[in-house]
Amino acid sequence: MNAAVSDALKIEEYRIQDEPYYEPLGDEVAVFEAAWRNQLPVLLKGPTGCGKTRFMEYMSWRLDRPMITVSCHDDLTASDLVGRYLVKGGETVWVDGPLTRAVRAGSLCYLDEIVEARKDTTVVIHPLCDDRRLLPIDKLGEVVPAPPEFSLTVSYNPGYQSVLKDMKQSTRQRFVALEFGYPPAELEARVVMKESGVDQAVADRLVQIGHMTRNLKDNGLDEGASTRLLVNAGKLMRTSVPEASACHSAIAEALTDDPDMLAAIRELIASVY
Amino acid sequence: MNAAVSDALKIEEYRIQDEPYYEPLGDEVAVFEAAWRNQLPVLLKGPTGCGKTRFMEYMSWRLDRPMITVSCHDDLTASDLVGRYLVKGGETVWVDGPLTRAVRAGSLCYLDEIVEARKDTTVVIHPLCDDRRLLPIDKLGEVVPAPPEFSLTVSYNPGYQSVLKDMKQSTRQRFVALEFGYPPAELEARVVMKESGVDQAVADRLVQIGHMTRNLKDNGLDEGASTRLLVNAGKLMRTSVPEASACHSAIAEALTDDPDMLAAIRELIASVY
Amino acid sequence: MNAAVSDALKIEEYRIQDEPYYEPLGDEVAVFEAAWRNQLPVLLKGPTGCGKTRFMEYMSWRLDRPMITVSCHDDLTASDLVGRYLVKGGETVWVDGPLTRAVRAGSLCYLDEIVEARKDTTVVIHPLCDDRRLLPIDKLGEVVPAPPEFSLTVSYNPGYQSVLKDMKQSTRQRFVALEFGYPPAELEARVVMKESGVDQAVADRLVQIGHMTRNLKDNGLDEGASTRLLVNAGKLMRTSVPEASACHSAIAEALTDDPDMLAAIRELIASVY
Amino acid sequence: MNAAVSDALKIEEYRIQDEPYYEPLGDEVAVFEAAWRNQLPVLLKGPTGCGKTRFMEYMSWRLDRPMITVSCHDDLTASDLVGRYLVKGGETVWVDGPLTRAVRAGSLCYLDEIVEARKDTTVVIHPLCDDRRLLPIDKLGEVVPAPPEFSLTVSYNPGYQSVLKDMKQSTRQRFVALEFGYPPAELEARVVMKESGVDQAVADRLVQIGHMTRNLKDNGLDEGASTRLLVNAGKLMRTSVPEASACHSAIAEALTDDPDMLAAIRELIASVY
Amino acid sequence: MNAAVSDALKIEEYRIQDEPYYEPLGDEVAVFEAAWRNQLPVLLKGPTGCGKTRFMEYMSWRLDRPMITVSCHDDLTASDLVGRYLVKGGETVWVDGPLTRAVRAGSLCYLDEIVEARKDTTVVIHPLCDDRRLLPIDKLGEVVPAPPEFSLTVSYNPGYQSVLKDMKQSTRQRFVALEFGYPPAELEARVVMKESGVDQAVADRLVQIGHMTRNLKDNGLDEGASTRLLVNAGKLMRTSVPEASACHSAIAEALTDDPDMLAAIRELIASVY
Amino acid sequence: MNAAVSDALKIEEYRIQDEPYYEPLGDEVAVFEAAWRNQLPVLLKGPTGCGKTRFMEYMSWRLDRPMITVSCHDDLTASDLVGRYLVKGGETVWVDGPLTRAVRAGSLCYLDEIVEARKDTTVVIHPLCDDRRLLPIDKLGEVVPAPPEFSLTVSYNPGYQSVLKDMKQSTRQRFVALEFGYPPAELEARVVMKESGVDQAVADRLVQIGHMTRNLKDNGLDEGASTRLLVNAGKLMRTSVPEASACHSAIAEALTDDPDMLAAIRELIASVY
Repeated sequence: MNAAVSDALKIEEYRIQDEPYYEPLGDEVAVFEAAWRNQLPVLLKGPTGCGKTRFMEYMSWRLDRPMITVSCHDDLTASDLVGRYLVKGGETVWVDGPLTRAVRAGSLCYLDEIVEARKDTTVVIHPLCDDRRLLPIDKLGEVVPAPPEFSLTVSYNPGYQSVLKDMKQSTRQRFVALEFGYPPAELEARVVMKESGVDQAVADRLVQIGHMTRNLKDNGLDEGASTRLLVNAGKLMRTSVPEASACHSAIAEALTDDPDMLAAIRELIASVY
Repeated sequence: MNAAVSDALKIEEYRIQDEPYYEPLGDEVAVFEAAWRNQLPVLLKGPTGCGKTRFMEYMSWRLDRPMITVSCHDDLTASDLVGRYLVKGGETVWVDGPLTRAVRAGSLCYLDEIVEARKDTTVVIHPLCDDRRLLPIDKLGEVVPAPPEFSLTVSYNPGYQSVLKDMKQSTRQRFVALEFGYPPAELEARVVMKESGVDQAVADRLVQIGHMTRNLKDNGLDEGASTRLLVNAGKLMRTSVPEASACHSAIAEALTDDPDMLAAIRELIASVY
Repeated sequence: MNAAVSDALKIEEYRIQDEPYYEPLGDEVAVFEAAWRNQLPVLLKGPTGCGKTRFMEYMSWRLDRPMITVSCHDDLTASDLVGRYLVKGGETVWVDGPLTRAVRAGSLCYLDEIVEARKDTTVVIHPLCDDRRLLPIDKLGEVVPAPPEFSLTVSYNPGYQSVLKDMKQSTRQRFVALEFGYPPAELEARVVMKESGVDQAVADRLVQIGHMTRNLKDNGLDEGASTRLLVNAGKLMRTSVPEASACHSAIAEALTDDPDMLAAIRELIASVY
Repeated sequence: MNAAVSDALKIEEYRIQDEPYYEPLGDEVAVFEAAWRNQLPVLLKGPTGCGKTRFMEYMSWRLDRPMITVSCHDDLTASDLVGRYLVKGGETVWVDGPLTRAVRAGSLCYLDEIVEARKDTTVVIHPLCDDRRLLPIDKLGEVVPAPPEFSLTVSYNPGYQSVLKDMKQSTRQRFVALEFGYPPAELEARVVMKESGVDQAVADRLVQIGHMTRNLKDNGLDEGASTRLLVNAGKLMRTSVPEASACHSAIAEALTDDPDMLAAIRELIASVY
Repeated sequence: MNAAVSDALKIEEYRIQDEPYYEPLGDEVAVFEAAWRNQLPVLLKGPTGCGKTRFMEYMSWRLDRPMITVSCHDDLTASDLVGRYLVKGGETVWVDGPLTRAVRAGSLCYLDEIVEARKDTTVVIHPLCDDRRLLPIDKLGEVVPAPPEFSLTVSYNPGYQSVLKDMKQSTRQRFVALEFGYPPAELEARVVMKESGVDQAVADRLVQIGHMTRNLKDNGLDEGASTRLLVNAGKLMRTSVPEASACHSAIAEALTDDPDMLAAIRELIASVY
Repeated sequence: MNAAVSDALKIEEYRIQDEPYYEPLGDEVAVFEAAWRNQLPVLLKGPTGCGKTRFMEYMSWRLDRPMITVSCHDDLTASDLVGRYLVKGGETVWVDGPLTRAVRAGSLCYLDEIVEARKDTTVVIHPLCDDRRLLPIDKLGEVVPAPPEFSLTVSYNPGYQSVLKDMKQSTRQRFVALEFGYPPAELEARVVMKESGVDQAVADRLVQIGHMTRNLKDNGLDEGASTRLLVNAGKLMRTSVPEASACHSAIAEALTDDPDMLAAIRELIASVY
């Protein structure tokens, strides 16, 4: 089967069919939509598990565009994003990478934790992130112009930034940037109830524990509990694991290995029950 | 033979036929089962040889799912987990890696000492560890949804964690975590008897020696003797190696090379006999 | 299709059809043109987003030569620039890289942030940058003489220079060098109006904010806001994002992650409104 | 010829035909045999040239099993041990590595200086070193069970251990460990006579010199003279090199380059003659 | 076409047809010629742009031998110099590298900035640089004797030497070495006039500026202006760029990015006009 | 043509036809010959250019064995020594490396500066350097026994030894070691006369200069002038370069780049003339 055709067919798999459950935190929906209409790329900043991926799914549904997500990592290269030649049946076949598929299909492309990727990703991101809106595919000797519907979004967690894994100013000064944080207590409890099925009282206690752990950040914890961990704890409770045990496994042990911190978090949990 | 078919056939090799001997330490069986039913990934923490692998074999038998184990290491890449193209008879054939085989077969996948692996494993683990439950196979241009029976479990030994080999919060805050430790004395003696065939008195002495070495942790030993070492010593004794000699080879020399520590452990062993 | 022919056809894609909007800062147009007539390579220095790429587009239009741009990065090798063999249909085909295409077509070649590239790029740049004007293609056993119309331009941001990413004297002492900076206020406001569509008052405020951030350079900011960021903010405003919110997302969050700096820039922004 | 067949034929080359000359130091023969009968892997520790390899040859002969030896090094990978695909005559052929050949043939496998190898060797050694006794060959999608006759032995020199080249506790706590040292004087003289053909008086002098150099360990020498060096000196003497000259070339210059140490050892040698 | 034949034809491209303009500094022409007649390799030392390449072109013309130049760099390997196999039309074809072509053709080979190259270049240079005069081509299993006309010349800039990029004594003690420096003022002015077309007064001013910058070496400048930069400035002046502006772009900005140094050099330039 | 046949034919190229000019320094010829007869490997130690290679050529002629030399370097791997598969005409052909050729032909193999090579060379050297006398070729699944005539010699310069480039005790304690140094004055003058053609008076002055530079070792020079440099200077003098100029180019500039050291050596040279 022709590679281009097969890709065109498959892109529909990346369309979000049902409205994802998303509770807005501020004007992020309006800014993202304005950036998209002006064909400006967007940078999402914030701690893990605070809803950046969910926000992207929501925008993908709202703007009715398919979304292709790539979790970046230390070894991700430009070729992983753009594509490469593969030998099949004695014939060399070009296979588009996820970024190229996104550009061709005019979909949203979400590069999660971009700073983790190899630096050669810069060469393909830069011309997509300014007036040119072009994806150069050197190995094909081809330059693919991005249609107006295409949008590039990247994310990272400023808490993890190091000298080695920094975003160059020449890169970041191309993006409209949105900061994400933990939702306010009331909203977060609503999310926990909706996602795990626990009742209000249980959700309130989980959110209270979440806040306590976030206050420990930089006092022994690298990061507080994300909303996702609170949801995980709720799910265990709903499957008959006792509340303290669920909090211990889904929150405390997931956050840290340090015996003193584990004891401290156990006490926090006990103080709520 | 067709690769997919051959894989389907082979997965049955990974099913645990007989109930493995496992002595529970706490509520780990219940929590694991609840996590599995909620399709949450699990993180096992604890020192070497304390029964994490045995626990996984037990859960695999109990939930009646095949289990595929991968011992991670410095050079393990995402391709090692997901699969790669191989040239066979002039034709390029895709060969599924162990993680892909596990996802397709709805089996348990156990990544032992995950923090040792290359960081590009993150890209395949992340979307499997949240709501999406997807395994992206970029080289096939394919996204494989995980069936509800599939479950990912990873392990590591917090004692070995270093700055370079740390688990990112964005990864660990996806897991339900269970801590494993050495079993209580009575239970451990039962395990030693059952596995090595020695009698109660011998097993009690071995457990006593085990406890003594564990007290030396951070006082010259990196780690105390695991239950496995006690079993090894028991086995040597059952094959007519004298008790002190068996303890020396199977426990002392296996734990350390330091002449002073070796002398100290020899004295500990002598004090028991 | 024959590779050389296909390249010859495609080079026209790289010709700039319409006069780009460019406001000269000094004698850079005259010096560049003199260097080009003397077949001397040019080095552009300056901070990100101050118009180096736009200047190149303008010169490309003015001299009526196609321009091929390469964004350099840590992993860019000489082969990426010169070309490589690819296996197609069982036959090995040579594919010219962007620098070779530029030399053959007598076009301008612009290597953006050259110091990021691998050092083996030196071997192909040096003989192009002195009297010889030759591009050696070792893998073809061929030496391509550059036609008089060909010109090599490289850029970098002196603010990013490090010991590891320095330009060797034996390389830089081949170039005529031009320094770029931020345009004067009046000119910059004109650019912001023209590019984003905001009116004079809005543009003046944006330029004022830009200057304020540039004064923070080396006092907590790695770099001040480029003209591009001011334009981005203007575009968001034109799509109904409130001015302060647009400045926050397009300027403050794009510049830094530091909470204190973000607060300081918010205050700067508030002081203007 | 079929690869599996050719391997089966060749394994007989690895059988030790004649009883190697070996003088036991303690209970190492009994412990090794008990470990082998219990299918426990063995770790040999000790300085270079003290007879670890000879011991393995002796056990291989005594247990009547072929032995495959691999000298590990910085670049030895799991593939070097397990095997790899090679392209032959347009067809891809799998070639078993030495470890796989040993497992299939139920022979002894001796990995000399295991800590030098790449860490991915862990992935193949671990499942061979616990109850599972399995060799996973991911590239074949095959898991080879080790027959009871198979035994894995590894060695290293604790004197060389560094932080980078340490054996993880999760690895070493799988082995029965045996420490080797230099043989007592009388026994060592017997070995020197037997191996080099010198008479008792010459052998005694060589052993005396050996002891002197071992006392210099950590006082300027990294390690004392091994029995092998004493044998080398004896062989040179038997081929008409004068005794002092033979000791100088075969012992002193082989041990160190330091002029002061060389002078000191020369004096030691002179004091014996 | 046969590779050897095509190489033989092409070598004539490397012959210098017309006498290059070269002003001798001392006895370098006589020493080089004596070294060449004795088949001794030559090492050229000196700062960038002081005429080493031009000297080689002159000697190539004078001795009537073709010259092959290789600009060395961090990633240049022995294979880049010697040659490699390439797959063409299903057949493996050996392609000689530049050094091999030079040896076979009895031409001069000039390895510019040899210390930048990978260390495996040593293996091919050493046997060419002593009595043996052999080029081993391991991949062909062939040893090519160098004809008497062949000569190897290497260069480097002692100012750049670092611990990592040092020439081993075992390498450098094979060469006859010649040091190059900046020409005396009168001679340099003659070169500037000849190469750029400016008149005596302009050339004198340029040489004066060159000397001033060279006095700044190690006082803020890594290196002073080479003769090449003075020629570049002259060329710009001849194309109607004002003298101060030409000096600024071709000399000051080419030498440094440091604002203080740039101001100092501007003052130097102003003092001359 | 069959590879094995072609290799057999070519090995004769490596036989030394005429007695090389060699002046013995001590008992090195007798010790080497005794080591060769006992099939013991030899380690040559000493500074550059002191005649180690010439000694090997002499022994090769004296023992009437061909000699294969490999100059080791940072990137030399075991495969470079042992051999590799190459694809030729669609068929995979094994090509023996130089070590394998030497073993098969029973010739001398000389690995120059062995400590520079990659560590995986250990795996092939070790079993060749003890009783086993075997060359394992894993990729062929073959073990080649070395015939009695085969001999392995390695060299290194103790002055260059660093922590990273050290020879492990487990390696060096396999060799008979010979130390080389500069020849006594009278002998060295004889060598210089013989090799360069200068008369006794000139040779004496050159040797005097050589001694002076050797006294500067560790006082600013990494190493003194080798005999080879003195010969080079003599050769230049014989081709009408003045003596002081020849000494400057062939000795001073070849030894160092340091201006103070160069001035000092110039004075030494002047003091002799």
